[in-house]
This record gives sequence, C-alpha cells and structure tokens, in this order.
Amino acid sequence: MKKIKVGVLGATGMVGQRFIQLLDNHPFFEVSEVAASRRSAGEKYSEAIAGRWKLETPIPEKIADMVVRGCAPCEDFDCKIVFSALDAEIAAAIEKSFAKEGYAVCSNSRCHRMEPDVPLVVPEVNYNHLEILREQQKRRGFKGFIVTNPNCSTIGLVLLLAPLHKTFNVKKVFVTTLQALSGAGYPGVASLDILDNVIPFIGGEEGKMETETLKILGELKNNKFKYADIKVSAHCNRVAVKDGHTECVSLELEKNVNREELIQCLRDFNPLKKFNLPSAPDPPIILKGQDDRPQPKLDRDLGRSMAVSVGRIRKCNILDWKLVLLTHNTIRGAAGASILNAEILKAKGLV
Amino acid sequence: MKKIKVGVLGATGMVGQRFIQLLDNHPFFEVSEVAASRRSAGEKYSEAIAGRWKLETPIPEKIADMVVRGCAPCEDFDCKIVFSALDAEIAAAIEKSFAKEGYAVCSNSRCHRMEPDVPLVVPEVNYNHLEILREQQKRRGFKGFIVTNPNCSTIGLVLLLAPLHKTFNVKKVFVTTLQALSGAGYPGVASLDILDNVIPFIGGEEGKMETETLKILGELKNNKFKYADIKVSAHCNRVAVKDGHTECVSLELEKNVNREELIQCLRDFNPLKKFNLPSAPDPPIILKGQDDRPQPKLDRDLGRSMAVSVGRIRKCNILDWKLVLLTHNTIRGAAGASILNAEILKAKGLV
Amino acid sequence: MKKIKVGVLGATGMVGQRFIQLLDNHPFFEVSEVAASRRSAGEKYSEAIAGRWKLETPIPEKIADMVVRGCAPCEDFDCKIVFSALDAEIAAAIEKSFAKEGYAVCSNSRCHRMEPDVPLVVPEVNYNHLEILREQQKRRGFKGFIVTNPNCSTIGLVLLLAPLHKTFNVKKVFVTTLQALSGAGYPGVASLDILDNVIPFIGGEEGKMETETLKILGELKNNKFKYADIKVSAHCNRVAVKDGHTECVSLELEKNVNREELIQCLRDFNPLKKFNLPSAPDPPIILKGQDDRPQPKLDRDLGRSMAVSVGRIRKCNILDWKLVLLTHNTIRGAAGASILNAEILKAKGLV
Amino acid sequence: MKKIKVGVLGATGMVGQRFIQLLDNHPFFEVSEVAASRRSAGEKYSEAIAGRWKLETPIPEKIADMVVRGCAPCEDFDCKIVFSALDAEIAAAIEKSFAKEGYAVCSNSRCHRMEPDVPLVVPEVNYNHLEILREQQKRRGFKGFIVTNPNCSTIGLVLLLAPLHKTFNVKKVFVTTLQALSGAGYPGVASLDILDNVIPFIGGEEGKMETETLKILGELKNNKFKYADIKVSAHCNRVAVKDGHTECVSLELEKNVNREELIQCLRDFNPLKKFNLPSAPDPPIILKGQDDRPQPKLDRDLGRSMAVSVGRIRKCNILDWKLVLLTHNTIRGAAGASILNAEILKAKGLV
Repeated sequence: MKKIKVGVLGATGMVGQRFIQLLDNHPFFEVSEVAASRRSAGEKYSEAIAGRWKLETPIPEKIADMVVRGCAPCEDFDCKIVFSALDAEIAAAIEKSFAKEGYAVCSNSRCHRMEPDVPLVVPEVNYNHLEILREQQKRRGFKGFIVTNPNCSTIGLVLLLAPLHKTFNVKKVFVTTLQALSGAGYPGVASLDILDNVIPFIGGEEGKMETETLKILGELKNNKFKYADIKVSAHCNRVAVKDGHTECVSLELEKNVNREELIQCLRDFNPLKKFNLPSAPDPPIILKGQDDRPQPKLDRDLGRSMAVSVGRIRKCNILDWKLVLLTHNTIRGAAGASILNAEILKAKGLV
Repeated sequence: MKKIKVGVLGATGMVGQRFIQLLDNHPFFEVSEVAASRRSAGEKYSEAIAGRWKLETPIPEKIADMVVRGCAPCEDFDCKIVFSALDAEIAAAIEKSFAKEGYAVCSNSRCHRMEPDVPLVVPEVNYNHLEILREQQKRRGFKGFIVTNPNCSTIGLVLLLAPLHKTFNVKKVFVTTLQALSGAGYPGVASLDILDNVIPFIGGEEGKMETETLKILGELKNNKFKYADIKVSAHCNRVAVKDGHTECVSLELEKNVNREELIQCLRDFNPLKKFNLPSAPDPPIILKGQDDRPQPKLDRDLGRSMAVSVGRIRKCNILDWKLVLLTHNTIRGAAGASILNAEILKAKGLV
Repeated sequence: MKKIKVGVLGATGMVGQRFIQLLDNHPFFEVSEVAASRRSAGEKYSEAIAGRWKLETPIPEKIADMVVRGCAPCEDFDCKIVFSALDAEIAAAIEKSFAKEGYAVCSNSRCHRMEPDVPLVVPEVNYNHLEILREQQKRRGFKGFIVTNPNCSTIGLVLLLAPLHKTFNVKKVFVTTLQALSGAGYPGVASLDILDNVIPFIGGEEGKMETETLKILGELKNNKFKYADIKVSAHCNRVAVKDGHTECVSLELEKNVNREELIQCLRDFNPLKKFNLPSAPDPPIILKGQDDRPQPKLDRDLGRSMAVSVGRIRKCNILDWKLVLLTHNTIRGAAGASILNAEILKAKGLV
Repeated sequence: MKKIKVGVLGATGMVGQRFIQLLDNHPFFEVSEVAASRRSAGEKYSEAIAGRWKLETPIPEKIADMVVRGCAPCEDFDCKIVFSALDAEIAAAIEKSFAKEGYAVCSNSRCHRMEPDVPLVVPEVNYNHLEILREQQKRRGFKGFIVTNPNCSTIGLVLLLAPLHKTFNVKKVFVTTLQALSGAGYPGVASLDILDNVIPFIGGEEGKMETETLKILGELKNNKFKYADIKVSAHCNRVAVKDGHTECVSLELEKNVNREELIQCLRDFNPLKKFNLPSAPDPPIILKGQDDRPQPKLDRDLGRSMAVSVGRIRKCNILDWKLVLLTHNTIRGAAGASILNAEILKAKGLV
C-alpha cells in the first residue's frame, strides 16, 4: 500500500516534534514536508531545531535532512494532509488557507475548535461529527477541510465520559487537573516557578474543558451541533511532572448504577476496534486496580501513550462517583490525537 | 510573667521538631521536657536526633542538651502541658495516661479527634468546644484533659469555611488537595515515587477531611457535638512540594451572595484578635489578588506560616463558588495548631 | 538454539526488577527461577512484589506467575546461571554456596569484587580476567564460580578510561559524580532530603571508584591481579535525577595527544563487536557534539541504556583533558552489566 | 546616623529583587532610587514588577510605591551609591556613565571585573584592592568609581582559598560545581530542561572561576594587579536546586599541613570582625562536621546567607585535600556581595 504524504506545520515546537516522532514509520502516512516559521525556512530540519529537540528518541534520519519550508499558504506542499502544531495566534489564517487549497488539515490548535462548522473530534467518541465537513466546504469554499482535536486536558475526560454518557447519561462533572509541564510548550514554565511548587492556574484551560467537552459529547443534527446537557466545572493546576495530566473527577449520572455496572461500561468501550487504526489504543480505557494509581510516571505510556488510565473508582459524597484519570498530554492530548483523527479520516475514505 | 513549662512527646519526629522550633522563645511557654521512644530515652536531644534534624534553623541550644525521656505515663514530667506529636498507633494510650495524671494534653494525633468528649479545636473557629473538657474529665476520671487539632489538610479548609458557614450557611464542599511531602513525615515519600510524578492517594486522608470538618463546624450543646449539616467530598493527592497544602475548593452556600459580600466576609474574619495570642495570625485569612496565587513556595509562610491564603475566587458551574487555598501543613496544619490550642487554653484560664 | 536457564537472586528489589525486565525475551537466557528473602518465598512473584514494581514496563507475564523461592543455598535451582542482586550484607555467604554447588554466579554485589581470585569484569575492558576462574574454583573448591561487575559509578569511568589507558597510558583521574536516585535502591533517598537539594556524600562510593577502577584496568598475570598504576580521586554526590550517573572527569595521560587523537581513540573502541553479544552496545562509547551534553534525561538510554555517552572534551588547566560522561546506573551500571558478563561467559564457552 | 541614599539599577530582575530585599531596613543605606529598562520607567515599582516578584518576603512597602526610573546616565539620581544588577550586555556603558557623574558604582555585572583598573573585591579577602580606585578615577576621568564583585560560583571558592593561600600557599585547585537555578536569572532554565536532569554546562562560567579567582587572590602593587600563581580547573553543572551553589574542591598546598592545621586556619579567618559591617558574616567560614554536609537546602542560609559552609575535609589521592563548600548564590554570590562591598567602602571612608 502506498503511504499518504503528510506535512507538519510548526514542526520545530514541542508538539511538532511529537508529530515527527510519532509519524516515523507510520503505516499509513509518511512525512514529506516540514514547515515552520519564516526564520527557519530554507534550513535543514536538524539545523533549524538544533539544541531544541527535546525528545528521548533521536530525530528520524530522513526528517533531519529535510529542508524546512515556511507555513505560508501559497507554498506548493507535496502532501495531502497537513498536521498543524501551530500556535493559536497564527494558526487560524494559515490553516484556513491550506484548507482552501485542498489540504486536509488536522489541527491541534484551539483556534477553530468551537466554530459551528468545524468538527472537534476524538475518534473513539464522535467520529460521526466528521459529517459536518461537507457543510464546512460548502460554506467556506474550501477544497480541503479542517478537523480539530481537543485540548490536552479535555481529551482524557471525554474518553472517560463518552461510554458513561451514552449508557447512563452524565449530568454533572467536577474535575481538578494536575497538569504536566510539557503542556505549556518550550521553554514554557520556568524551573524557578515550579520547583517545590504548584501553580494553581493555567490561562484559558478551565474554559476549554468546560465547553469543548459539551461539543464533543453533543450531537450533530442537520449540520448543527447540539451541545451535551452536562455541567462541567474545572480547576486546573500545573505540577512538576514532565508528561501526563492527572485529573480528579467527580460525576453525577442520570441513571442509578452500581460499581460493577460502571466498570463494565468502561471495560466494554472500544468503538474503534473494527477499524484497526494504528494509533487507536486497544482498549482505550485501562482500569487500574491499585489504590494509588494511575500515576503519571508509571501509567502515561500505557496503550503506547494513547490510552486513558482510570483508577480509584469510589462513591462521592455529593455527586455519584469519584475517580482519577490520566492521559499523556503531548501524545494522546496533542500530536497523537491529530494523527488518530487523520487515521479515521482515511478509514472513512475522507482522504 | 513566668512561663508555663511544657513537654513535647514524640520530639524527634518531623512534627516534634516543629514543636521544638516554634516553642523556642515562645512568650507563654518554655520547653522543660522532651520525650521520645524508649530507644532514645537517656540520650541528649542532639544525640537522639543526630542527622535527622530536618529544619533550616538549628536545634535551639537549650534543647540540644536536654536529656530525652521516655513517653511512659509513669514518668514524672516537670511541666503542665504536653504537646503530642506521637504516631497515632501509640498515641492513644500514652495521651490518656498523661491526661489522667493531670497534664493538659494538646495532641496533633488523630486518635482522639472524633471521640464524643474530646474537643477538636481550631481556635479561630470553635474554641467554645473547649467547654466539653469538664465533661471529659468527669467521664474519664482525668485530672488533666485532651485537646486535639485537626488533620493538616482539614485545617485550611475549616478556616475558610468558618466565616462563610456562620454568615451564609455552607451546604456542599468539593475539595481536591495537592499535598506536600512533609505531611507524610520522615522518611515518608520515597524520592523515586514522587520525582516527575503525582500520587493520587493518601491513606485515610479523604475520610478525615470529610468528617473532621463537620465536627469542627458543628455545635456543642449539652455536652454533645452536633455535626454541621454540610456535605464534603475530598480527593487527596501528593505532589512534589516540600511544605504547603494547596486545595481547590468548590462550595455551595444557602444564601445567595455576590463576590464582594463573599470577600468582605472572609476579610472581616478575625475572632482571636482580642486575645492577642502569639501564634494567632492577624488576619487568619489572607486574600491574594493575582490569578495564579496562592502558591506553596511563595505563600506558605504568610502570617508566620499560620495564615490560610485564599485566591482565585470565581463562579462555579455546578456549586456557587470556586477558589484555591493554601496552608503550611507542618506549622498551621500540625505543631502550630497545637500550640495555638495551648495559647487559647491559657487565655481562657484552662491551664 | 536452546536458551540457558537462569535464576535471579534478590528478584524483588530495584536491581532485581531490572534483571527481570532485561531478561525478558533475551536471546540467550530464560528466567526459570526467581528468589528473594524467606518472607516472600512461596508467593507468586506478582504478589511478592505487589506495589513495589517500579518500572515503566509491566511485569513479564511468565514471571508474574512464578513462585518465588528462598535464596538458601540448599535449594535445588533449575538453572545454570544465577544473577545476584542481593544486598552486600547477605550476598557473600549465599553467592559462595551457589558457586560451590556448581552455579555460575554473576553478581552485582560489592562483596566479592576486590577478592584476589574473583574477576571484576566489564567485558569491553577486561574479559581476559575471566581466566582467574579456574584458579578460583581450585582454591575454593567451587564447582561453579563467581564473576562480579563493578559499582554503578565505576563502570562508566572504566569504559571511558579503557581505550585511553591502552593507547596513551592514563596516569591521574579526577572524577566528580552527580548520581541518580535509583542508585540508592528503594525506598532509598527520602524525597524531603533531595527535593531542592544535593547530598554531597554517598557512603563507600568514593572508595569503590578509587579502587575498583585500578583492578579492572589492571593486568592478570600468573593468576595474580596487578592493579593499574593510576591515581583516582573521586567526589560523589546525589542529585534529583531518576536514572543516569553524570561524571565530570579530568585526566592526565602519559602520552601527549591532541583532541583529534583522543576522540579517534574513543571512536575506535569496540572490542566486543566480533562476539555479537545481545546486550553489548555498538559502539560502547557515544560521543556527543553539543556543548551541553550528555544529559541524563536525554542520553541515558542510548545504546539501549548500555552505552556510555561522552561530551565536552576540552583542555584542563591542571591535568590534560576534561570531559563529561554519563551511564544508566541500574542498567549499564548494575543488571545490564551482570547480564553482559553472562553473555561473554557464554561466548567464551564458560557456561 | 543619617543613612546613605542608594539606587538599584536593574531593580526588577532576580538580582535586583535581592538588592531591594536585602537593603530593606539596612542600617547604613536606604533605597532612594529604583531603575530598570525604559519599558518600566515611569511606572510604580509594584506595577513594573507585577507577577515577577519571586521572593518569599513581600515587596517592601516604601519601594512598592517608588516610581521606576530609566537607567540612562543623564538622569539625576538622588543617591550616592548605585548598585548594578544589570545584564552584562548593557551594563558596561551605563555603569561607566554613572561612575563618570560621581556615583560609587557597586556592580554585580561581569563586564568590568577583569579590567586592570577595576577592583574585583570580596571584602574578607582583598579590600586593599580598593586602593586602585584613585588610579581608576585618574585614568578614566571618573568623579565616582566602579567596584565589582565576582561571579556567584567564584565567591565561595575564594572565601575558602583566601586563608589557606595566605597561610599555606595554594598551588592547584580542582572544582566541580552543582549550581542552583536562580543563578541563571528569570525565567532562566526551563523546567523541562532540568526536571529529572542535570545540565553539565553553564556558558562562560568555568572561565570566570578560573580567572577571577586569580585576580582576587592576587596582589595590588604600584597600581597593578599581580595575579596569584594558582592553577584552577573548573567543571560547572546546573542542578535542580533553587538557591545555593555546591562545589566539590580538591586542592594542593605548598606547605605540608595536617587536618587540624587546615581546620584551624579556616576557623581563625575573620578579617572583617573589627569593622562591624552589617552584612559581614561572623565567622565567614562555617565548618560542618557531619559526613553529608553542607547541603543547599539546609545550609544556604547560614550566616544570614552570607557565610560559606565547608565540610567533608579529607585527603585527596592526587592533590592534598578534598572538601565540599556551599554558598547562597543570589545573596552571598550576588546582591549581598555588592552590598558588603558598599559597606567596606563606607567603613574605609570611600563613600
């Protein structure tokens, strides 16, 4: 099978590096273009990134020698899909121009997520939202399209909520996050700010969790998104962890269920199994039995860093259930999420 | 004024060291006895503790040369008050025997906190609960008595809730903690377990927060504690912070209030001012205006480590208000709490 | 090819876990016995270790179900080789009894390293020292034998020094280590002792580096070890790093060489290549060009965690050259070292 | 006694904040001017620094309301002394213009340290070097003058070496540093770069230690500095410590001494005692007896953070002695050093 050529926009940043790493030897895709700011354009990737490659695995050799291109829309990119790891400030215009020119844009940026004709997709949860794409193309005159994935702290939560909502109807969700440093990019959080410390604030994060969740768990009808009728309240904190967002969740269900039913519902959840997607974790939800799990250091890489780990399921004094979940924020919560979106696009014949 | 002689039980542990440190040059009290396990008895304090003194200030000279005594009840201690920093496993019997012999026991141990004739006191909140002491003496045949202070994660929460409950009636409280390492004692948490990690579990902690809070905020009537009618749900986590427990709180009030009323209520709270107690923070609640505060490293030592810092007061999507609070766990949350209890005992003429 | 059966003594500790992990799917060896303290004996491995498995990869399934045996010498172990991850305090007697019974003991313990008839082997450096084994068997009446590997901080240093010593004659070596937490075992270093701190002392470590190095780089003649004529001076420190010992080295060579000759000498070093040993890194020394490398987080896993990374080669104002080296302390510096010793034993027909 | 008015250049950076903190309630000096980049000029100090005040103590009230001025030389500053916490890139021109206009400039910047007519002063070691100031004024046409203090990693080393050099003649010094994060300023080291890591490189640092040491320990004769005849070789590393540089030192002395003589020499060192300077630690060298001391977390604040702690004095296999020292890098190693320089200037009648 011939691989689909893909490009990475913002290829030198933290999320861009993860795209490069995860796409190395990918069975569906091969990276044919790497793009970054005008400053890097024209340099070899290995030079453009010199000293800023922050992953434990080396730069794939083929990529190291690629010439970095600018992210200007006029460029003639030799690829079908572009993955966008661009900063939100500049992503909107660039992503739209690529979509206009016919590229399938799989974006990790927040800029288009909440727009009424852009699908915000977690394939295990709502790949049917991709149906909006025809409408998007029509409305905007795009030859291609834009598909987005949620914020790194939202994605673990919706993976947990999806089966519960479908089966028992989720009504209320309290979530307090303990988020990893890599979520802030590089250089991101100063070491003096986080050593022996917690920062109980991440700009914009709580709002994202409280709204993105509703769109993803909502329904698409007649080309309109109807948000889920759930109340979400989030507290977001930064802690001294490299990768892996931990989330303490309390939730209320419409249906009265016991612990076994709850667990069985999570265990049964595996809607992508039939598609055999290379990045889809099987199963997507991993239940941890020990009292003190999941933990970022020990569990963030489960399911090749694409699963959500769930533990400490117990009764809540106010809502119904309490639990702890964990996801790898730069893989499941960013680059891996976009790649999984591209995989479902391929499986559904949309690229 | 002649100082009251006090003893410290469990003087070589983490909390015991804090007692020694905080009682150095105390205006009301002077340490005349230090006691520890039989193993240390007979040694000089400086020898008994060799290599395990973990505080940044040196061992007070006078204490360094004191001979450590055993914690056996039969010993004739030259003091009126004993502060107990004993482990819960052994504290119960020892504290009772001291109380029986006529000592005022100010205990940081959890063992007697929830007993129906033992006051669980945070002086700013419920020093009137000390009235149970006569009943305690009567029932148990104590010549002295036992007074307890709450768990290190409870104390910040009740200090916040006390004025709100009195003025607006608190109905529900969600709290997720990010707790410091020193709360686990020494050696406590292994470095391999917490570097680049979060541990989403602290044995017994959630139950303590959910029950102690109700007793402290409850009423004492006819020698019976009536627990407050509040629902508390807690998630407790350990993070890589030395000192200072951060707590993300959502709460529901019976009365409808606006942000200004809420803040004014917290600002007006200073019930101990009239007593001029040396360890009482003035004010006990410090409001932080910046988005990203309080933070353990920057705010744990406010009010000489005895205040609770509160910030990020904002609306909650499910309950009424969300906020973040912070307290120093081994000072306000342990040794300092017991000492403040002893100070109010003195102010009320009970020692 | 049929795999050789091996056992792991002290299989539940930190180094024992690494043995289990590294021996999973090993092409030469298969684990047929796991042994630990009498307390664990009779339990399944997964039960005996419950909650103390500290590696990011799960317990290999086959091992999880194995029944843990005691380390008593009288037991009839179904294996040819035993890897010893035992604490030094108890290792000596146990290892000798296994050797006596005919097992090839590959020990990571310090207890026999410096004995005059025990080879202290780093295969890339001195596998010829294995010739002493016949003498060892003769002297001690062993049917099997004991082979040891050096301390985790020694091994990186001797890998660096070996080619330099052979080619240019090393005369003096200054080394200051910044050692990882995992080197102290589990629970090891308390988090309160190392967060925001450095501990400039590791008991016995400096002496090991200063003496083991001389034995390994020395010669075996007529069944006698002649120590290398090198002066080594070590400063050992503990830092807040999970895995990976960093070492700052200054050295004096007898021959006058330039930077290119030095680098070429390190590059040319690959004496095990011909043996095709599964755990032998190829090459064993990896040169890092950037100013700020090697770094533990980025480079400890090079050469599947078995290589030594070397960087910052520059002139020294007092001796001749300065540089920085890094090795993974629980793989290259412990379990991996013992396994590589077993591999060379097999290659040389000694098991 | 009327206090001398002082200004702080670069008052909003990390070192600038330390100046503000340390000068609060200083018995000799009072801050009358705070200056920073043009961007901040005209704002209140509390506004200019909003969110970037990183110290545990609050901004002194008087300073919070001061209007920040630019660092342009033409400004008419109402003070006699200016402390410079400016970045080296811009410090040179600004400091010279202030010196020209008659201000006594006490600079922490590296830019003038090694110039032949600028004293590089550690008062305990070489306040006699201030004699060069007349020559400096003559040569440069300054009405004021520039006095500098050394790099944060040099100062602990020279404090140790000074008494030893005077008494026994130091010949060679090996030093490996484990330096704190605050030495890199703010935001400085990215948290992703140092969590679970060591960075074995600090740009320019080794050169500073190897040359500044020689000037400070050297002699001033006929207005010329004769550098000390010592060979210094430095390895500099960054570690995850907030404040406090640890240094592992090996040294060779011309005279043959025993351990007692060495220790006595360090103990007797207190050349500033007669001046009663408020920031001079008494004694400047604190000897720690325990094997594992000094440690940054426990010892950086000894002597009000102005002392150097020394421990682990033992024989070296190559040079004569090995030891560990520790200094607080932003107090003793930066702001406090400049302030102590100003104090000795006052004591010697030079301001």
